[in-house]
Amino acid sequence: MFTHVDENNQPKMVDVGEKKVTRRLAKARSVVVAPDLVMQHFKDGEISTKKGPVFQTAIIAGTMALKKTSELIPFCHPIPIESCHISIQVIGGQIIIDCEASTHGKTGIEMEALCGASLAALTVYDMCKALSHEIRIESTELLEKSGGKRDYVKTQ
Amino acid sequence: MFTHVDENNQPKMVDVGEKKVTRRLAKARSVVVAPDLVMQHFKDGEISTKKGPVFQTAIIAGTMALKKTSELIPFCHPIPIESCHISIQVIGGQIIIDCEASTHGKTGIEMEALCGASLAALTVYDMCKALSHEIRIESTELLEKSGGKRDYVKTQ
Amino acid sequence: MFTHVDENNQPKMVDVGEKKVTRRLAKARSVVVAPDLVMQHFKDGEISTKKGPVFQTAIIAGTMALKKTSELIPFCHPIPIESCHISIQVIGGQIIIDCEASTHGKTGIEMEALCGASLAALTVYDMCKALSHEIRIESTELLEKSGGKRDYVKTQ
Amino acid sequence: MFTHVDENNQPKMVDVGEKKVTRRLAKARSVVVAPDLVMQHFKDGEISTKKGPVFQTAIIAGTMALKKTSELIPFCHPIPIESCHISIQVIGGQIIIDCEASTHGKTGIEMEALCGASLAALTVYDMCKALSHEIRIESTELLEKSGGKRDYVKTQ
Amino acid sequence: MFTHVDENNQPKMVDVGEKKVTRRLAKARSVVVAPDLVMQHFKDGEISTKKGPVFQTAIIAGTMALKKTSELIPFCHPIPIESCHISIQVIGGQIIIDCEASTHGKTGIEMEALCGASLAALTVYDMCKALSHEIRIESTELLEKSGGKRDYVKTQ
Amino acid sequence: MFTHVDENNQPKMVDVGEKKVTRRLAKARSVVVAPDLVMQHFKDGEISTKKGPVFQTAIIAGTMALKKTSELIPFCHPIPIESCHISIQVIGGQIIIDCEASTHGKTGIEMEALCGASLAALTVYDMCKALSHEIRIESTELLEKSGGKRDYVKTQ
Repeated sequence: MFTHVDENNQPKMVDVGEKKVTRRLAKARSVVVAPDLVMQHFKDGEISTKKGPVFQTAIIAGTMALKKTSELIPFCHPIPIESCHISIQVIGGQIIIDCEASTHGKTGIEMEALCGASLAALTVYDMCKALSHEIRIESTELLEKSGGKRDYVKTQ
Repeated sequence: MFTHVDENNQPKMVDVGEKKVTRRLAKARSVVVAPDLVMQHFKDGEISTKKGPVFQTAIIAGTMALKKTSELIPFCHPIPIESCHISIQVIGGQIIIDCEASTHGKTGIEMEALCGASLAALTVYDMCKALSHEIRIESTELLEKSGGKRDYVKTQ
Repeated sequence: MFTHVDENNQPKMVDVGEKKVTRRLAKARSVVVAPDLVMQHFKDGEISTKKGPVFQTAIIAGTMALKKTSELIPFCHPIPIESCHISIQVIGGQIIIDCEASTHGKTGIEMEALCGASLAALTVYDMCKALSHEIRIESTELLEKSGGKRDYVKTQ
Repeated sequence: MFTHVDENNQPKMVDVGEKKVTRRLAKARSVVVAPDLVMQHFKDGEISTKKGPVFQTAIIAGTMALKKTSELIPFCHPIPIESCHISIQVIGGQIIIDCEASTHGKTGIEMEALCGASLAALTVYDMCKALSHEIRIESTELLEKSGGKRDYVKTQ
Repeated sequence: MFTHVDENNQPKMVDVGEKKVTRRLAKARSVVVAPDLVMQHFKDGEISTKKGPVFQTAIIAGTMALKKTSELIPFCHPIPIESCHISIQVIGGQIIIDCEASTHGKTGIEMEALCGASLAALTVYDMCKALSHEIRIESTELLEKSGGKRDYVKTQ
Repeated sequence: MFTHVDENNQPKMVDVGEKKVTRRLAKARSVVVAPDLVMQHFKDGEISTKKGPVFQTAIIAGTMALKKTSELIPFCHPIPIESCHISIQVIGGQIIIDCEASTHGKTGIEMEALCGASLAALTVYDMCKALSHEIRIESTELLEKSGGKRDYVKTQ
């Protein structure tokens, strides 16, 4: 049940050796909220705003963190990342960061998607924090996953 | 203003060379919410529950990620981490992760505290996800910082 | 014979491209000895001692180092780690650290098991060194391996 | 065409999930030129010169960097490196660094070979820079690749 | 003379313990040349071209690699990076990558600047290689350094 | 007393913020023993043996691991490594690896020296394991440290 805990109540890596290789996908989302002071810079198109470098830096940071997931989460297995697509939109005063990733592997890629979204969100924070520290990562959650024992789609 | 963007709208690292070395502290918090199915395992003392290995793994993952912050956030400066204390409490059905860190440096340590809290939260997710994927990191935010130009304390 | 040295006496990585993928296991052990001053803290059950956080930290450090083996040993190949289980026991005044790991790969996983055991041992040292520096990692060796050309079991 | 750029002109990782696993090879070369002051130390055999430790250090640095390519190049996929052979020769006053690598993977290994050659060249620079800073990495380029859609051989 | 080689002809790290902390700067340049097929995409302003994501990705990759220099070059000392500014221009059919960095440290920052420029160049290669593999990093060299025993400015 | 364990029996990093910066040194030793089959290759001078590439690779691996210590040991502080010298001798059928390192820092450098020696030893193992797996790292211990509260010299 707690698959990462052994019979002596010590943490361990789950053995995935006998699992089948399947195509696995996951999609995670982080939402960043910031005061108007910050948000006004992201309203318009790329030319007149700072959206370009801020969001591109976040996308790259998220992608690189996603590839480091098994180094960051102690009992995550290394898996061969085959795709990663992070997109960032500003909707209704929120910065919505979606991270989608896939692999052919023996274990799911949801921690990778969550790491990618989280680090992209933290990078947005870093790039904007000279304007305000009242920025908040409002939620980080899994939207969907497939390819493992049970598919998952977040319900409303 | 967007200190990480240069005159050609390209991202860059801020020059902190002429700033003074001061003692800097930061405290960040991530809150994890999970279904009862997960939370019931964390209710009681350490003996009868899985709290021990799950939370200790999260504390260690958060501490190690905190030390990697300048490797994860593209334009963060490396700073000499002098302390890091992560504590995790279960209060009212929420898992509250507090990360406090300090340095003597030329730039603040708030991104480090936020990274530490975030990765501890993601590790809690990872350790519990075999039970449910309806876990959510509900917020990650800075509680306070000091030692820089302006102190910051989160208002209610 | 020295498979890591080329015809010009220069080091190189062995080419494993034509080798078959097989299930490979390895088990390594590090033994830590420490003065009574240290050992008395590890005598009893988890509640009254510091064994819990010290050994869990060592297990996690060893697991994370095991995943970094190909980054630490210059000519090691990266392999997809499928399981890692580190257990620590106190027997007769010694701290016995066993690290077992497996993969499906083209090359063995013994360096990984040895790295995992070694770094767990070094972490025990780090956690106890405020009490004494007379701690010694008394041996690190391979107990067994299988799945390659020749199985190996340590003889007495 | 710019496969790393999405429909919103944002960078992304290419999806290689549906590509076939093939044996892929690549060979890259970096050429270092240095003043006579430096080059005279590399003229003769290993005994009387500093060639040994300088070139071996460069070979090891290049090999380790090659294994880190997907960590260094933001949108590179991690691939299972199966061989890497770096050789360094002094020809006509130039230090010629050849890096050859192979994998069975879904994407090519040319960025790895280029990274390996580049970091070996930078390491030669580092080991010699106390003698002169007029060292130059004169070119880094791909000599050949195979195993993908199109083989490539550098023409004269 | 070969400061990285000891009396037994073995490589070693130079001892900088007794050196003074000074402000140190370095500027390095990598030049990338590519066929017209590639270069035509970088001719104009940011809106109609792919210059935006390609160059920003290269700037970020270079900055992150610069912070990893002491991890990549075996005998480099870790130094506290205080600034890094990478700029990329297209001049006369060449992509000119300039990397400038500074620190207050006991040893120079030229290897960092060279690493930053090199990895930015390799990233440009990676982002364009679907168009052509006839891309070449034509030179990587130090333009200037200051703050150490001897200042250096590249002569024509 | 267990300085890495907090009042809730959870692991934490020690706060070194108020400690003084002093010059700190440490010397650690790992001893590797191997069957004659392996040792005969290390008997003579560099020309006729494989000692050159094996020991140089081990020295480099140890040096690079030493710089990564704070990344490998969960509660180690990052410190600015100022020197590292690893030397390897064959004495009486044993391979003796000595690692000496120094810093000006707020905390000791003994874990770094122990990591450097350990990873050099593991690398010797890796380079020789095609000949035999009966290799053992017989001991890893601290020989001396200075610069902190108490100097330490290993007694016989």
